[in-house]
Amino acid sequence: MTQPTAILLISCPDQKGIVARLSNFVFERGGNIVDSDHHSDLQAGRFLGRIEWEYDGSSSDREQLRQEVAQVADPMGGEWALHFSEVIPRIALWCSKQEHCLLDLLWRHQAGELGAEIAFVLSNHETLRRHAEALGLPFHVLPVTKENKADQEARQLDLLRQERVDLVVLAKYMQVLSGDFLQAFPEVINIHHSFLPAFAGAQPYHQALARGVKLIGASAHFVTSDLDAGPIIEQDVIRVSHRDTVEDLVRKGKDMERLVLARAVRLHLHHRVLTYGNKTVVFE
Amino acid sequence: MTQPTAILLISCPDQKGIVARLSNFVFERGGNIVDSDHHSDLQAGRFLGRIEWEYDGSSSDREQLRQEVAQVADPMGGEWALHFSEVIPRIALWCSKQEHCLLDLLWRHQAGELGAEIAFVLSNHETLRRHAEALGLPFHVLPVTKENKADQEARQLDLLRQERVDLVVLAKYMQVLSGDFLQAFPEVINIHHSFLPAFAGAQPYHQALARGVKLIGASAHFVTSDLDAGPIIEQDVIRVSHRDTVEDLVRKGKDMERLVLARAVRLHLHHRVLTYGNKTVVFE
Amino acid sequence: MTQPTAILLISCPDQKGIVARLSNFVFERGGNIVDSDHHSDLQAGRFLGRIEWEYDGSSSDREQLRQEVAQVADPMGGEWALHFSEVIPRIALWCSKQEHCLLDLLWRHQAGELGAEIAFVLSNHETLRRHAEALGLPFHVLPVTKENKADQEARQLDLLRQERVDLVVLAKYMQVLSGDFLQAFPEVINIHHSFLPAFAGAQPYHQALARGVKLIGASAHFVTSDLDAGPIIEQDVIRVSHRDTVEDLVRKGKDMERLVLARAVRLHLHHRVLTYGNKTVVFE
Amino acid sequence: MTQPTAILLISCPDQKGIVARLSNFVFERGGNIVDSDHHSDLQAGRFLGRIEWEYDGSSSDREQLRQEVAQVADPMGGEWALHFSEVIPRIALWCSKQEHCLLDLLWRHQAGELGAEIAFVLSNHETLRRHAEALGLPFHVLPVTKENKADQEARQLDLLRQERVDLVVLAKYMQVLSGDFLQAFPEVINIHHSFLPAFAGAQPYHQALARGVKLIGASAHFVTSDLDAGPIIEQDVIRVSHRDTVEDLVRKGKDMERLVLARAVRLHLHHRVLTYGNKTVVFE
Repeated sequence: MTQPTAILLISCPDQKGIVARLSNFVFERGGNIVDSDHHSDLQAGRFLGRIEWEYDGSSSDREQLRQEVAQVADPMGGEWALHFSEVIPRIALWCSKQEHCLLDLLWRHQAGELGAEIAFVLSNHETLRRHAEALGLPFHVLPVTKENKADQEARQLDLLRQERVDLVVLAKYMQVLSGDFLQAFPEVINIHHSFLPAFAGAQPYHQALARGVKLIGASAHFVTSDLDAGPIIEQDVIRVSHRDTVEDLVRKGKDMERLVLARAVRLHLHHRVLTYGNKTVVFE
Repeated sequence: MTQPTAILLISCPDQKGIVARLSNFVFERGGNIVDSDHHSDLQAGRFLGRIEWEYDGSSSDREQLRQEVAQVADPMGGEWALHFSEVIPRIALWCSKQEHCLLDLLWRHQAGELGAEIAFVLSNHETLRRHAEALGLPFHVLPVTKENKADQEARQLDLLRQERVDLVVLAKYMQVLSGDFLQAFPEVINIHHSFLPAFAGAQPYHQALARGVKLIGASAHFVTSDLDAGPIIEQDVIRVSHRDTVEDLVRKGKDMERLVLARAVRLHLHHRVLTYGNKTVVFE
Repeated sequence: MTQPTAILLISCPDQKGIVARLSNFVFERGGNIVDSDHHSDLQAGRFLGRIEWEYDGSSSDREQLRQEVAQVADPMGGEWALHFSEVIPRIALWCSKQEHCLLDLLWRHQAGELGAEIAFVLSNHETLRRHAEALGLPFHVLPVTKENKADQEARQLDLLRQERVDLVVLAKYMQVLSGDFLQAFPEVINIHHSFLPAFAGAQPYHQALARGVKLIGASAHFVTSDLDAGPIIEQDVIRVSHRDTVEDLVRKGKDMERLVLARAVRLHLHHRVLTYGNKTVVFE
Repeated sequence: MTQPTAILLISCPDQKGIVARLSNFVFERGGNIVDSDHHSDLQAGRFLGRIEWEYDGSSSDREQLRQEVAQVADPMGGEWALHFSEVIPRIALWCSKQEHCLLDLLWRHQAGELGAEIAFVLSNHETLRRHAEALGLPFHVLPVTKENKADQEARQLDLLRQERVDLVVLAKYMQVLSGDFLQAFPEVINIHHSFLPAFAGAQPYHQALARGVKLIGASAHFVTSDLDAGPIIEQDVIRVSHRDTVEDLVRKGKDMERLVLARAVRLHLHHRVLTYGNKTVVFE
């Protein structure tokens, strides 16, 4: 129903004529732009853009296009990435014992909503094996202790490379990733069960109850070595009252976690998210 | 703090290269695009775009730019409008007896939020005169009956012409405008106190209470001769419960009406709204 | 963690002293009220109340308590029901081909959120059999045509009686239930994929797109013989824009349908919903 | 249209029979309960209740009723307060230079929404004098410096006593109240322009922009000597994006501040808020 497209994401110092140069580039190659959006952060002096056009080239054509884009984009002195809607990204879902986020993503995968292949599911526990295997997905268990963490992260990185994974989704994976791991594989989205920056750290629902807030939330963010402080992609909240116990907050919070994580993953897989500094631009 | 800009809104049959042509047009004149957004309605085969660039030309330069835009845009076979951020739009606020929407817009005007000059306030009643006059604004009273409606609309149109009004905001003006009036002056935004299309027509809060809905809303829309059926610009809702009486619904609804009308007026005054068919594209 | 409780729901003509009589009734039996809430609809002259107290009686004690309640409540001239938190309600989930609502309820069931036993899953199609059977739940297929509808409804009623079902949840069951069926089994909750009363009937997302609304919603309601017009239990909305295609509306709408249906079912299973006329009182 | 009522708010150690004793108390005096609600915080072992019944007694009768309530409530060993809907509370609005919250409350006052008399408006600046005086309200200016703060607070307390003020509303009053002041006059509601506990302290919108959050909020809370940490009464949020500058956050935030403060004040003036520990129970 929808045509295949090429998508260029670019982040560079702001200057005159960038939009013209990029849209000309597409036009000269006979492309039809179906979506273009950009944002100039005047304070940071930064141009952040996304341009999507109809494109059904073969693999070799894609490689050539990439070189042509480089000739236009490299002189702009920033970072860029070229994606093709026909190249389905490969993701890995990492979980621990809680199933709600994993099941939600698996369901969306089945429903054709996700737009990604799931390379494997990984956990530090056996608990959720049957959910992965019911869909024929590999389920890897790598228990993590203080002692074996470096070794296990090496194994995780091997798996990600072998399986050509583009994105790791932490679907309630209750382990902190090391700075070394993140340097080797930086594309990681996490769901934090609070409206960050409120209630960072452990047990946010207990914190929320103690503070007596009237709304609780969830935040999906890119993972950085600074815990719970990475660039936020999506957030949402739900109303709570004095009648809600910690159990109620957990239940309501799970619904937010599922929705917010799924939205963030979808936005990223559709190449609609750019990060700069500690923030994101989301081209919705 | 912000630079003056020119803003082009365009709606035309979709075809390749429109974005390139428009952004080139700006680039060739040394313009720096600060915002560009467009939407292709594939079903309708329609391109709807907005492009904004830094521009501080004098009046005569503006006229020349308008002619140059015509040379690019007219061949595309659609409709377009060129606006300048330095040209402050002139609006008229029309009300009846209820003050909440009028006061809210007057307050935003004072706070410098609105981005418009208020040419005058008009009502079919004397009730709210003091609010207009407290700010030194002309207050015209034109009572409307079945018999004098055509005459009064003629007077209203005279006023709009004399005062070079760009937009009429119906801030709870409880009169229907005739098709003739709207043909002569089509730029009219209304606030309807329900989540349209639910509860069109009279007494939506009574209807909402009788139906037992759990949310009530408000809708800001362009006025057409088909009552409550014009293109919707903005909508929002608020939660209600069985405890809420009609008075409570009215009170909660007023807050929604104020917010939704103010947002819609602001979007339009910033040239962010395009209509086509019975719908709007809002470039937020 | 939580104590077992008894819950009295009552709807009767309003009069002085009802709360006192009911709370005395509990107090005289040594009960500790953990929650009590009521609403007087002054216009309708109706008292609607819910009172919940700690109670861990055996089955025979429960029967006796029911008789004692009758002595207090019957003279009030209304309707009442006595529930026990230890008596887990039995529900049947009815679906057609779409899985999102069914899967969501099945997941909540597994997660212990639902507070009900699922007696069986029923469909007019084979499509979703594996989801029910994966959890060991009976899956009954009763295809419905114009000709066999009466017969199939007779079979459905037999199943409901045999399995002692308390509530039928229409989780996207795309068939209209007859008035006869509903008279025989009135406890049925449906999810409608629009913000009722807007877009009742078929293809609400197509209607919403054509109308150009800025929010779409979902409504969970008790089923009556008047299609899409039964008492609303819960509603919610989500923001949409001109960029959203019908497919996007469907996707966003599914998230609302899942959440809204699950909330409504939970509220009903916790005996927090009373209907009167065409409305509900929800004791949250 | 609505009958006058008496309202009892009570907070005491939880025990059996409280609801029965209170509702009996009302019933024995021929009262008709129009609303009763309570909450048992099982963890804290605390009963928090609100009971409202039709009551149109004269002043002397009210004094007698108060003594009768004392005989029932004092033995429960907690705190209670008896209010009468016919006794209109007196409030003072304190502001600095920003007008949006003050104007909103003044407008609601005129519209009959607030349910309070405004005793006076107080500021540390002359800026908003005309808004108060336009409505014939006294406007007191008490500039505060580090040196004169104790003296000015003494004057403020004198004013509050002379004018028999029940509640101070800090409508963007940008001064911290001392612990001594709050001990002498504890009934103070503040609006903080963030979703607490996120972004407590100064310049929350700048903090929010730097952190790249996707929602911003406002929180109305009782003032305690611990800045921005008092019991929260009401909160709400609004969506923001990367396109929003600090000015946009401020503008959107103002709408939230106005709504949230007005809701909190209204709830308190209708005697629907009880505090315990650092939390509130809001009987909506």
